[in-house]
Amino acid sequence: MAPRRQAEKAEHFRELHHARRVLILPNAWDVPSARVFEDEGFPAVATSSAAVMVSLGYPDGETIRRDDYLGAVRRISQVLSVPLSVDMVSGFGRTPVEVAASTRKLISTGAVGLNIEDFEHETKMLFPLSHQIDKLKAVRRTADSLGIPIVINARTDALRYGSGDEDERFKEAIARGIAFRDAGADCVYPMGLFDRDSISAYVKKLNSPVNVMVRKGLPPVGDLQRIGVSRVSFGPSASYAAMGLLKRISNEVMNTGTYSNLTDGAITFDELNNLARPKVKSEIVKKHS
Amino acid sequence: MAPRRQAEKAEHFRELHHARRVLILPNAWDVPSARVFEDEGFPAVATSSAAVMVSLGYPDGETIRRDDYLGAVRRISQVLSVPLSVDMVSGFGRTPVEVAASTRKLISTGAVGLNIEDFEHETKMLFPLSHQIDKLKAVRRTADSLGIPIVINARTDALRYGSGDEDERFKEAIARGIAFRDAGADCVYPMGLFDRDSISAYVKKLNSPVNVMVRKGLPPVGDLQRIGVSRVSFGPSASYAAMGLLKRISNEVMNTGTYSNLTDGAITFDELNNLARPKVKSEIVKKHS
Repeated sequence: MAPRRQAEKAEHFRELHHARRVLILPNAWDVPSARVFEDEGFPAVATSSAAVMVSLGYPDGETIRRDDYLGAVRRISQVLSVPLSVDMVSGFGRTPVEVAASTRKLISTGAVGLNIEDFEHETKMLFPLSHQIDKLKAVRRTADSLGIPIVINARTDALRYGSGDEDERFKEAIARGIAFRDAGADCVYPMGLFDRDSISAYVKKLNSPVNVMVRKGLPPVGDLQRIGVSRVSFGPSASYAAMGLLKRISNEVMNTGTYSNLTDGAITFDELNNLARPKVKSEIVKKHS
Repeated sequence: MAPRRQAEKAEHFRELHHARRVLILPNAWDVPSARVFEDEGFPAVATSSAAVMVSLGYPDGETIRRDDYLGAVRRISQVLSVPLSVDMVSGFGRTPVEVAASTRKLISTGAVGLNIEDFEHETKMLFPLSHQIDKLKAVRRTADSLGIPIVINARTDALRYGSGDEDERFKEAIARGIAFRDAGADCVYPMGLFDRDSISAYVKKLNSPVNVMVRKGLPPVGDLQRIGVSRVSFGPSASYAAMGLLKRISNEVMNTGTYSNLTDGAITFDELNNLARPKVKSEIVKKHS
């Protein structure tokens, strides 16, 4: 992508975090899941690391080779017109230098946003705060050097893997969020924040964009908007839902011998085929066919 | 895969076409869609060329590079314990020599069955019958030379792209089916055969395994079994259904701000992660966690 176009796209994506309406960000795992979200009108699309990695045969984390993961990201980026934000796990690297290299590779795919986590998948241990700050600064510095004002969504897992009781973990999640914000993160993503009061308290303390993830019991979008949430992302939930549908399809066809779950509310062959193409091109194809 | 193990798997897959129960064959497009079908108890899994290709950003046909397509097949094959059959479009090649090369590459992925079509995607023209017979013979000869009794599902699109009226096209589909059977195909797959009477007539004329594809209005599995169908495959329909679900998810979250389609009947993070691993291994992981 031309650097100027990519820079504009990044700025546009940043603005979506400061609009009056909360940004609903669906997480995709391959080309058609990303394209169908774009067709349905979402102003931006993200990847879910778990959903992308499992689709390629790897568990969530950094087991997959960075280039294989970014290959999937590139395929999505090539067909998408709206901004794409990528879950980069903990940056595919342990040092700021390695994270800077990952950032360069990520930007070369055309993506304009990224998530970066503050814990290690294998040990479930939080990285030291100063260490994580150095990584965030490396991302920003690298993106600046390329002229791309990439949108950094800094995730903290302090609520899950911090030390002490619930209160202490909440305080740590706040402290990390503030530190990430001050180090240049555009949005903070406290994993495990689901009830209305905690979300509201977190947003007030942070006083800058906060991302929450959909799960059963999350307050509806309107409520989240009222309490000041800037971004609601699906996480891997669309992938969980799709696999649940495949289970219902399987059960129905094996136990009753019918195909309702397969055929009701499904798209067509032409619609699927069009999802392999960029939106504009597929609309041109539609007009001329 | 060890040649002996692969040969046994191919024979087992062939036997499933001659069992008392019709073989229900679900078509997957990536690792978790294949693995979830295996977990649900299907005795074999197939790929849908359209669903796999679109998932990688290519329209159905032979636009994708053969090795990129077979890369996706290999990822699926590596985590699957049940037999895998692969839709090879028209063999990724125009000549028997090219189709033989594709067969060798396919067998190297561990797959034990393939579909091969008798028409060209771009022109919607049927290949001359003798030409298609030469390709089928090349597949069989190549597989034999490698010691793998691969299961050939020979598709004909005569009902859709043959010449003449409906009766003439039906006769051509029969003639091609018989010729394919006699050239060594294990199963014949007449695309566009959906109503009970036509399916029944076709099966009687062929007197060897016939594959039909699920779509709205196809008689239920029990009826197909009674009229002698050997194999019912999903084609790309599970992919159509999954994309339909993503549309309902999108509509609900954007218009009512709720998440029922995302969260109801969904699988969990651990269940998704386990779909990246072979079934046996994931069961061991479950026991010890």
